[in-house]
Amino acid sequence: MSTDGPGAGAAVIESAVIEAAMRRALAASDGAHGTTSPNPAVGCVVLDRAGEVVGTGATAPPGGPHAERAALAEAGARAAGGTAVVTLEPCNHTGRTAPCVDGLLEAGVARVYAALADPNPAAAGGLDRLRGAGVDVTLGTLAEEVARGPLRGWLHRQRTGRPHVTWKVATTLDGRVAAADGSSRWITGPQARGEVHDLRRRMDAIVAGTGTVLADDPALTARHPDGTLRDHQPLRVVVGNRDVPAGARLHTAGVAPALHLRTRDPAEVLADLARRDVVDLLLEGGPTLAGAFVAAGAVDRVLVHLAPALLGAGPHALRDAGVGTIADIVRLQVDEVRRAGTDILIDAVVDDAGPVARPAR
Amino acid sequence: MSTDGPGAGAAVIESAVIEAAMRRALAASDGAHGTTSPNPAVGCVVLDRAGEVVGTGATAPPGGPHAERAALAEAGARAAGGTAVVTLEPCNHTGRTAPCVDGLLEAGVARVYAALADPNPAAAGGLDRLRGAGVDVTLGTLAEEVARGPLRGWLHRQRTGRPHVTWKVATTLDGRVAAADGSSRWITGPQARGEVHDLRRRMDAIVAGTGTVLADDPALTARHPDGTLRDHQPLRVVVGNRDVPAGARLHTAGVAPALHLRTRDPAEVLADLARRDVVDLLLEGGPTLAGAFVAAGAVDRVLVHLAPALLGAGPHALRDAGVGTIADIVRLQVDEVRRAGTDILIDAVVDDAGPVARPAR
Ligand SMILES: NC(=O)c1ccc[n+]([C@@H]2O[C@H](COP(=O)([O-])OP(=O)(O)OC[C@H]3O[C@@H](n4cnc5c(N)ncnc54)[C@H](OP(=O)(O)O)[C@@H]3O)[C@@H](O)[C@H]2O)c1
Ligand SMILES: NC(=O)c1ccc[n+]([C@@H]2O[C@H](COP(=O)([O-])OP(=O)(O)OC[C@H]3O[C@@H](n4cnc5c(N)ncnc54)[C@H](OP(=O)(O)O)[C@@H]3O)[C@@H](O)[C@H]2O)c1
Repeated sequence: MSTDGPGAGAAVIESAVIEAAMRRALAASDGAHGTTSPNPAVGCVVLDRAGEVVGTGATAPPGGPHAERAALAEAGARAAGGTAVVTLEPCNHTGRTAPCVDGLLEAGVARVYAALADPNPAAAGGLDRLRGAGVDVTLGTLAEEVARGPLRGWLHRQRTGRPHVTWKVATTLDGRVAAADGSSRWITGPQARGEVHDLRRRMDAIVAGTGTVLADDPALTARHPDGTLRDHQPLRVVVGNRDVPAGARLHTAGVAPALHLRTRDPAEVLADLARRDVVDLLLEGGPTLAGAFVAAGAVDRVLVHLAPALLGAGPHALRDAGVGTIADIVRLQVDEVRRAGTDILIDAVVDDAGPVARPAR
Repeated sequence: MSTDGPGAGAAVIESAVIEAAMRRALAASDGAHGTTSPNPAVGCVVLDRAGEVVGTGATAPPGGPHAERAALAEAGARAAGGTAVVTLEPCNHTGRTAPCVDGLLEAGVARVYAALADPNPAAAGGLDRLRGAGVDVTLGTLAEEVARGPLRGWLHRQRTGRPHVTWKVATTLDGRVAAADGSSRWITGPQARGEVHDLRRRMDAIVAGTGTVLADDPALTARHPDGTLRDHQPLRVVVGNRDVPAGARLHTAGVAPALHLRTRDPAEVLADLARRDVVDLLLEGGPTLAGAFVAAGAVDRVLVHLAPALLGAGPHALRDAGVGTIADIVRLQVDEVRRAGTDILIDAVVDDAGPVARPAR
């Protein structure tokens, strides 16, 4: 974390106030997550001279204002001499919108706290320009927390050029995803199932294999608990050579048509979706497709919804992941374990493909 | 919880002091867990008039003194007018030792706090006799916590007549217990593996199928981290019709010989082991034997050591548990989820076979 001293005459604001503002900016960006790609979902909070929150903003869909502009617009004249707290380094380049740095300087902001630097060379340099203009700049506030939030997939894509892949699976304690007769509704309880829809609305694309589509006929939409559609719907993608019947729910879900990629190659799927500006991809099954992605090193995060239940038969969570012996086991690091209703949620990253830099533990 | 008022002239001791004493009694009983069967592993703490701990005891192996006698012996004259805090109702019958109630009365104890009543009619009535003799008696202190502790298996056996069965399994996130080539050392990390030995020393018997014995050649002993044997070794039991080679580690582990039960019927295994005074039984595998126990309704508690890792092939945690469709799934309730080193430990009870009464949640 690099810290410049407070500017002459600027009131010192407690770090607890800055962290609270950063969490607020993070929450604001979460609301926009899933709607901004290929742009990052940034959040910004503007504090007045006294440290009061006077503006909050998040990135609008492509072409619309960035988070800083939205927060400054809400703050108006109260931003002068105040502080901007933002999850990502303000941009310094003219794209479809004018540089955010200009907006901050025009508003007379005295201090800027950014969680993360912009890894994109075209957009970076914002903090340097602010420093050059006499603004107090602090980089690194809640950096780790922010890097695990809505920017995670975007940072990953900046670094690797491909979408960030989360494999989500609902399984029993003995690793089954359906019973022997194929029935699978429901393994997990209502809370975990509700959280899947919260997750889907943050995604750019949901991917399933033809096997899952033919077996379960899923809609793969993001829905509210009452079954109605959410405002934001990710692109739905089916992978595999077999046809999907015309009457499938995938075709009748009342949202934009699903994309069918007639391939079995995860790299091809990722390259195609990258061209479509997909940043955050949710792989929802099934075991064959997930195995192919794991074998290709294309899974970055694993989200297990674990039902405390036993089946003893039925399809497994994962098939043919390219591991033949224990020495080649795919190791993950657990970021979070928590209860969700009667179920357990495990959030882990694949060791070699950590989408965020792993701090030493 | 039934509470009688404090006796005339007796100093009132704060409930926090009593609860701390009960936790101490519970910890003392934990040290004896595994060495007392068929007797319950009870813990007792004696406080003097002022509420100071003056004696701590746990049940000795069969034929030795009960917890109350041991704690009273340590307290000596300081027990007079004091308080006994005990995890189970003091016994009122003459077995190989004289009734504990007599000991408490002779020592002049003024108050007795017991967590749980004795469900065994032959031993029960202790609290009534104490009340009749003018002792202040309180039943129910930390009852739920105590019932989940070292008495759990014994309470289960009192209620059902059969040993309490804990199925322990070390699995990957995708439910595999070995890789495709059969290699399984190690799926979990050193901390989880160390906890298995802590668990084994609390058990009366460890059970594995011939399949596991032939594949892994396990010793099934309780060892210290340096590999040396612990003082207490549970009875080791192999189940299945195949022979175990004479050179197997099971035969050369330097402890009492293993028992080979040439049957495939879990009920027969339990009946045989019940006759051998087994109260706490640890089922350590593998998937076939575990499936047979689950199908027979003979698993009470499931302890999953979950490694954050993926295999995508290899034997599953559980096979042929008698479940064909999702409606027949075996549901568990999660008592505890926690991290153990890099792994996750899940402690759950089988819904219909809860070894302790389930409190409403
Ligand atoms: N509980 C859960 O979280 C969950 C989630 C999803 C599915 N499931 C269950 O999983 C079962 C379906 O399993 P599944 O394995 O058939 O589903 P799947 O993985 O969704 O689909 C398998 C199909 O994907 C295609 N595919 C794409 N890439 C491939 C590759 N590299 N290698 C091989 N095939 C590739 C193939 O289709 P083509 O033959 O058409 O090329 C293959 O048959 C159902 O029982 C479903 O209920 C459970
Ligand atoms: N990770 C772990 O926690 C863990 C623990 C244990 C084992 N494992 C793995 O599990 C694999 C061994 O699996 P497994 O299923 O062969 O082991 P298993 O369940 O220990 O043994 C199976 C054998 O048990 C006997 N058996 C007893 N009751 C039975 C019944 N009701 N029905 C059928 N058979 C019964 C049969 O032997 P007979 O034919 O002799 O009658 C059967 O072949 C190994 O790869 C081992 O590494 C992993």
